[in-house]
Amino acid sequence: MQPDLPALGRRLAAEGIGSFFLFACVIGSGIMAEHLSGGNDAVALLGNTLATGAILFVLITMLGPISGAHMNPAVSLVSASRRELRWSDATAYIVVQLAFGILGAWAAHLMFDLPMLQFSVKARTGLGQWTGEAITTFGLIFTILGTVRFRREWVPASVALYITAAYWFTSSTSFANPAITVARSLSDTFAGIAPKNVPSFIIAQLLGAAIAAVVARWLFDEVKPSRE
Amino acid sequence: MQPDLPALGRRLAAEGIGSFFLFACVIGSGIMAEHLSGGNDAVALLGNTLATGAILFVLITMLGPISGAHMNPAVSLVSASRRELRWSDATAYIVVQLAFGILGAWAAHLMFDLPMLQFSVKARTGLGQWTGEAITTFGLIFTILGTVRFRREWVPASVALYITAAYWFTSSTSFANPAITVARSLSDTFAGIAPKNVPSFIIAQLLGAAIAAVVARWLFDEVKPSRE
Amino acid sequence: MQPDLPALGRRLAAEGIGSFFLFACVIGSGIMAEHLSGGNDAVALLGNTLATGAILFVLITMLGPISGAHMNPAVSLVSASRRELRWSDATAYIVVQLAFGILGAWAAHLMFDLPMLQFSVKARTGLGQWTGEAITTFGLIFTILGTVRFRREWVPASVALYITAAYWFTSSTSFANPAITVARSLSDTFAGIAPKNVPSFIIAQLLGAAIAAVVARWLFDEVKPSRE
Amino acid sequence: MQPDLPALGRRLAAEGIGSFFLFACVIGSGIMAEHLSGGNDAVALLGNTLATGAILFVLITMLGPISGAHMNPAVSLVSASRRELRWSDATAYIVVQLAFGILGAWAAHLMFDLPMLQFSVKARTGLGQWTGEAITTFGLIFTILGTVRFRREWVPASVALYITAAYWFTSSTSFANPAITVARSLSDTFAGIAPKNVPSFIIAQLLGAAIAAVVARWLFDEVKPSRE
Repeated sequence: MQPDLPALGRRLAAEGIGSFFLFACVIGSGIMAEHLSGGNDAVALLGNTLATGAILFVLITMLGPISGAHMNPAVSLVSASRRELRWSDATAYIVVQLAFGILGAWAAHLMFDLPMLQFSVKARTGLGQWTGEAITTFGLIFTILGTVRFRREWVPASVALYITAAYWFTSSTSFANPAITVARSLSDTFAGIAPKNVPSFIIAQLLGAAIAAVVARWLFDEVKPSRE
Repeated sequence: MQPDLPALGRRLAAEGIGSFFLFACVIGSGIMAEHLSGGNDAVALLGNTLATGAILFVLITMLGPISGAHMNPAVSLVSASRRELRWSDATAYIVVQLAFGILGAWAAHLMFDLPMLQFSVKARTGLGQWTGEAITTFGLIFTILGTVRFRREWVPASVALYITAAYWFTSSTSFANPAITVARSLSDTFAGIAPKNVPSFIIAQLLGAAIAAVVARWLFDEVKPSRE
Repeated sequence: MQPDLPALGRRLAAEGIGSFFLFACVIGSGIMAEHLSGGNDAVALLGNTLATGAILFVLITMLGPISGAHMNPAVSLVSASRRELRWSDATAYIVVQLAFGILGAWAAHLMFDLPMLQFSVKARTGLGQWTGEAITTFGLIFTILGTVRFRREWVPASVALYITAAYWFTSSTSFANPAITVARSLSDTFAGIAPKNVPSFIIAQLLGAAIAAVVARWLFDEVKPSRE
Repeated sequence: MQPDLPALGRRLAAEGIGSFFLFACVIGSGIMAEHLSGGNDAVALLGNTLATGAILFVLITMLGPISGAHMNPAVSLVSASRRELRWSDATAYIVVQLAFGILGAWAAHLMFDLPMLQFSVKARTGLGQWTGEAITTFGLIFTILGTVRFRREWVPASVALYITAAYWFTSSTSFANPAITVARSLSDTFAGIAPKNVPSFIIAQLLGAAIAAVVARWLFDEVKPSRE
């Protein structure tokens, strides 16, 4: 059922290192950007976006060939539902994403001389933001499945640029990742989210991911592309 | 006459999903950018540009192999005039682009907690802007036809970067798309255009597109490229 | 002596259209950027850089297979000196680059409702800027020759990103192109240069280009790349 | 033991020219950015980041096939430890990187009409920044080894984007290069670092590089990638 994958230990190492760097980058660049921007949040978001898109390209390019470079429980769950990954492996992936992602958040705090342990107080809630999370996670899963299907070499660029766009077109700045949502609740900085707002975000994300998986199966999987 | 294309239903789904995300991104990122930029419109346009260029790359990469990822009536009309698409299909494309594009605009309003139904009051008119729309749509069609002809794999990057440049070098910030012009008239936000200014924009766009189709046929279609 | 190239008429059309769009973009995005940036010149230069880099990628991608997409007399002269282009063709290229480039500058003025005919009063002079022009034109020619030699497919990206960098690391913001230097003297806007400062810029540019051609011949032309 | 490489003279020329342009760009774009940004350091860092990432892509694309385009003693040392480069060659590489890199710094000063010889007074010290240097150099070496292993064509993009991200997510803005650390101590500008803070930075960098070399050997070198 499962294609020939590298040993689980190596794949988990890839997920761990990837999540560490991704989450450290999302949170660290947010701290740097807010610190330098003198209150102009659009400039801060430009820096945060640039860094996040860039690191996503890098991590997916080098770690994709090992573990798929999910760094995102929603991606691992969709992958398991498509029988490209064992459910038990997906569970291990998710544990590692969370654990190393949180380490990444703490590393960002350490680098910027902030207290390691924090909880965000930034409210992110309401129908608008939940809709945003559902739409953006739909778009992320859809992007991955469509690009893998037709133009595998461009997956790192597509995912990086999708998140680049989504940071700007959703009111929540597009978390689109349950693990990063948890990690960001542990950082009272630019990228933070109050812990009590986390569950609704994750529900919206999983809903968007599930719908994307269904639509993508119909739209991409059986189609014969035109002249590509 | 027409090459072997995927079923029309799948192609229309691709056009619909693409137009939804493209228009939601153009309008949503404009709202986000203006909201955060504290009145510095150059910073706002940077955010708007980055998001629009990024989503174009993503959508064309994954949807291009299905429908061509036009998301733009001017592109569908040129495609039909080149007999790469049936005229009846082009009509269906355009209806879907408009319908789902407007849904995308409304989704942006919903995500940012704005009233769904709006009309822009932003005046965009005058010889300078009409010239801009004609030139920029010429450039867009020209870019698509030239890149498809010589370096098909780079079409998503070329179109994304063309629009990135055009947002800055035309006085109208380069709509270059009749459907998005209509949708943007339904949004009283950064990306808006007053409904009464829409018809002249569309005329200028179609004029630019028609000239590009003629010039491109002469310049690109019969030439044997040098060492490529 | 000369490889098999498309007919001269088509090549000149490509140079003309390319120069028109390149120069309109450099000058137009400068006008837009300065107009919107509220006096923050770094933000203005970000917009100007983004647009210039983006349009360079697009134009070289689609016009390179026809004419080489020089859009720059320094490039055409180096090409002729390498016997990749007839000297008479290079002369025709340069005339077209200048003529259509100036049309592009005027089109930018028209789009932004400015008087068509202008002369810049912006002083750009001194040893620092001349050194900058020599270094940056060296780098541009060197980039083109090196990338064409080893990784032809990446020429559009390399040239676009070279200019992106050079706008920031030279004190003159890197003209690196005699034709655009002339055209920018005809625009009293962000990208302008006073006509009396033009000759020294062009001399510095040609000097840098000549040195690059010599060094590149030794470094790139005969080397066997390692494992590429 | 060593694969078939171009003659050492050509490789050293490539390292020299590359280091000259890289360091001139890092320092020059910092001067330009700070000068134009009117005190908004986030905007300045955006310009500095864009220029640095762009020039890295260009230099690695054209010089990589000759010398590997290290421009960084940490990379040369790791390369020697992997027996891809003779230790004596690595020493020569490092001398050239330092010498031409410092010339690049001085060229930046010359272009911007600043005194050639300077020493930075900018304090960059403390556990947070040292941790940042160790993490970011780990990431850089890891990125290089992983991308070379699986997707060699994407090395220039990956390295450029890694540094783009790292400028933002580390508190030190990611030097990650002992030679550039020395050169930046000779520039009392945006990119500077006080000479007395240099040794700790270099120690942290070499530590990060060494760990990356070990982890990468286990994770990348023996793995069979999945479907790539």
